Amino acid sequence: MKKLNIAIVGLGNIGSYLFQYLNLNKKILSKKNNCIPNVKYVSAKRKNKKRKFKIKKDQWLTNYIDATIKKDVDLIVELIGGAEGPAKKLVFNALKNKKHVVTANKALIAKYGDQLSKIAESNNVNLEFEASVCGGVPIIRSLKEGLIANKIRKVYGIFNGTSNYILSSMDKQNKNFKDVLMDAQKLGYAESNPTADLNGDDVSSKLKILSSLCFNSFLNSNIHVEGIKDIDKEDIDYANSLGYKIKLLGFSEQIKNNIYQRVHPTLVKNNSHVATIDGVLNAVIVEGSPVGQSIIQGAGAGAEATTSALISDISSILRGNVKFPFSISSKERKKLKFNNISERNFSAYLRFEVKDISGVLSNITNIFSRNKVSIKRLIQNPKKNKGTSSIIIITHSSKDKALNKIIKIVSKKKFIVSKPKLIRIDDY
Amino acid sequence: MKKLNIAIVGLGNIGSYLFQYLNLNKKILSKKNNCIPNVKYVSAKRKNKKRKFKIKKDQWLTNYIDATIKKDVDLIVELIGGAEGPAKKLVFNALKNKKHVVTANKALIAKYGDQLSKIAESNNVNLEFEASVCGGVPIIRSLKEGLIANKIRKVYGIFNGTSNYILSSMDKQNKNFKDVLMDAQKLGYAESNPTADLNGDDVSSKLKILSSLCFNSFLNSNIHVEGIKDIDKEDIDYANSLGYKIKLLGFSEQIKNNIYQRVHPTLVKNNSHVATIDGVLNAVIVEGSPVGQSIIQGAGAGAEATTSALISDISSILRGNVKFPFSISSKERKKLKFNNISERNFSAYLRFEVKDISGVLSNITNIFSRNKVSIKRLIQNPKKNKGTSSIIIITHSSKDKALNKIIKIVSKKKFIVSKPKLIRIDDY
Repeated sequence: MKKLNIAIVGLGNIGSYLFQYLNLNKKILSKKNNCIPNVKYVSAKRKNKKRKFKIKKDQWLTNYIDATIKKDVDLIVELIGGAEGPAKKLVFNALKNKKHVVTANKALIAKYGDQLSKIAESNNVNLEFEASVCGGVPIIRSLKEGLIANKIRKVYGIFNGTSNYILSSMDKQNKNFKDVLMDAQKLGYAESNPTADLNGDDVSSKLKILSSLCFNSFLNSNIHVEGIKDIDKEDIDYANSLGYKIKLLGFSEQIKNNIYQRVHPTLVKNNSHVATIDGVLNAVIVEGSPVGQSIIQGAGAGAEATTSALISDISSILRGNVKFPFSISSKERKKLKFNNISERNFSAYLRFEVKDISGVLSNITNIFSRNKVSIKRLIQNPKKNKGTSSIIIITHSSKDKALNKIIKIVSKKKFIVSKPKLIRIDDY
Repeated sequence: MKKLNIAIVGLGNIGSYLFQYLNLNKKILSKKNNCIPNVKYVSAKRKNKKRKFKIKKDQWLTNYIDATIKKDVDLIVELIGGAEGPAKKLVFNALKNKKHVVTANKALIAKYGDQLSKIAESNNVNLEFEASVCGGVPIIRSLKEGLIANKIRKVYGIFNGTSNYILSSMDKQNKNFKDVLMDAQKLGYAESNPTADLNGDDVSSKLKILSSLCFNSFLNSNIHVEGIKDIDKEDIDYANSLGYKIKLLGFSEQIKNNIYQRVHPTLVKNNSHVATIDGVLNAVIVEGSPVGQSIIQGAGAGAEATTSALISDISSILRGNVKFPFSISSKERKKLKFNNISERNFSAYLRFEVKDISGVLSNITNIFSRNKVSIKRLIQNPKKNKGTSSIIIITHSSKDKALNKIIKIVSKKKFIVSKPKLIRIDDY
């Protein structure tokens, strides 16, 4: 039987799990793929770190970059992380030296995927990154293979388990953002520095990659990104009373000849499918022709789910077929027009905390009317003990820039007691 | 660029859609797969049938079986249907003559898949059948590739859109079985002869195929099959009042060293995921290690969704990699022990319609106690105008054969006015 020599670079949580998985499952993987996955080398920062598994002496590679020049390496699994530094150096050099690459690094692929795929293609090697988007959810392979027949018009969903855990726990456990975040960190669902999860950057990288795959376009950085850090328990409660849940969603959609990429907290009807996805789950929804709507969901993160994705990529390479990293040749990928969402229409939820004095409501509704945003529903909720009121407005579909202009104008008013909120509604 | 010559046999709803799709999308498929899908021949029963598309003179094949011997055919798409007759003859001959085969024929694969895959393997050609299970849901490719890392312990879900449409419409529109079935036929969701959809046979074929793929076993006919034709509106209403929905589910699961295959109407908690899948949708839920739970759902039938699946198979062959039809070599597939469900434990819902006379309840509960089935909940609902009562019992987990024995004993009692019901509960 043929054999493929693998070097694993990076032995954190995921790398360690993968190494042990490959040791345990070498036989069954060989049988399924007609080729032996042979872990020839591993490399990591610290050689002498205490580990739960044994690395053979001749498996250890002192300088990780040597993996890219050794003749007895066919495939490098990059598990260092980060868009720059050693991860970037490793992957560029690997592909230049005609090594296959499997990576879980969404930041790297979202930033340098176009360049990397060109090198992979001209050197006739694979660059696979299933593990970079939604861990155990086999969305990339499904887009490239299972759903290959389809012209996709929209891809969206819940791509970040940490944010989803926090929002659904705030909702279900009646706790505020800070308390839930602390719980999530204790449970290992949020990192000690959860910035990229909470500010939308993690979803942004994943969405850029999915966009390229869905629309056969190059990666594009025209993307609107908001995280969940401004969502209050109060917003979740008002949303509930109006029949909505709040979810952090990523969307990429083609409308006429424009593609809109956006990541933001979103009000979704509470009987919609995404509203039912709670906790650390991820769900990707694809709308295309001829298939209609497909949904794939599962564990989005963690060593187990990520290893499931890495093994699917490694297996694809074991079977010996070289594929285009982004589903189609770089020569055929298109420069599509990506548009800012300011010209797109949304209906929206706005919340204003105001001093409870006369004339405020007419002042606010006047601003809406002057900016041609029509109001569908309005709730005024006085907080008598504070001498303030919450004004919640649900608008009809309106230009995003008009909605933002209203927020800007109202923010400056003296009757405003805290930063106004704008949360877009998904009513499609 | 390389070229693959295709013969499409069968030009019904699906074959016609596929033929047109391939004409329209030849270019993009060639680019994505680096090989041209060339529809060399088509064959169908009636040459002169009025069709919405043109077939070139030299594309028409008068005798379909000639596709298996012509030198300028590489791949045959079988869309005749049925486990026997021309479909069987076509596929066996095609593989024997070293032609790749793509088929949507679940009955054929569920019955002859083992023999066929051996021939395909020894002749080094592909036999692909994504379209045979849940149409547009790319479950087979996901099991064989995206989730290849996983040891599966359970696969289950909603595999028949017609039954699911009927059950969810009975629930939501407050209509009885017959009326909903007539609606479904008008809407094209049920065939004029819907027997295989309603009696569970359709799900049974799909489940056998999924079992083999999940457990690396040969196909096995030890399967318990019940359809939905005995489900009354009354059962759906009682289920609702107890916090359940009724769904026709297929299950295949490994418990210790036994595999249990079963298809039956099932009470599922109304906050479970499957409870939310309404209408003609299909959903497949896979539980495995390391990935945990994955869910894939989408359109289960129709020419569009089925074509999406057929194209994914055709593309896989265009890319030129020969794969094991059942994910692993026939030499490695196992003869696992498939067990009858009579020894498996279930909690269950039972409904007895009885004459409203004294002593009936104690008579029934005695039978439960003698058969060691303990009762978790009991509702007696008198129908005064009829002089009868409904007795609904929810049991604790009990041996299936004990539950069936109770049904058998109670059925013979003189106080019984209609056939007792037994619906298993999924409480895992």
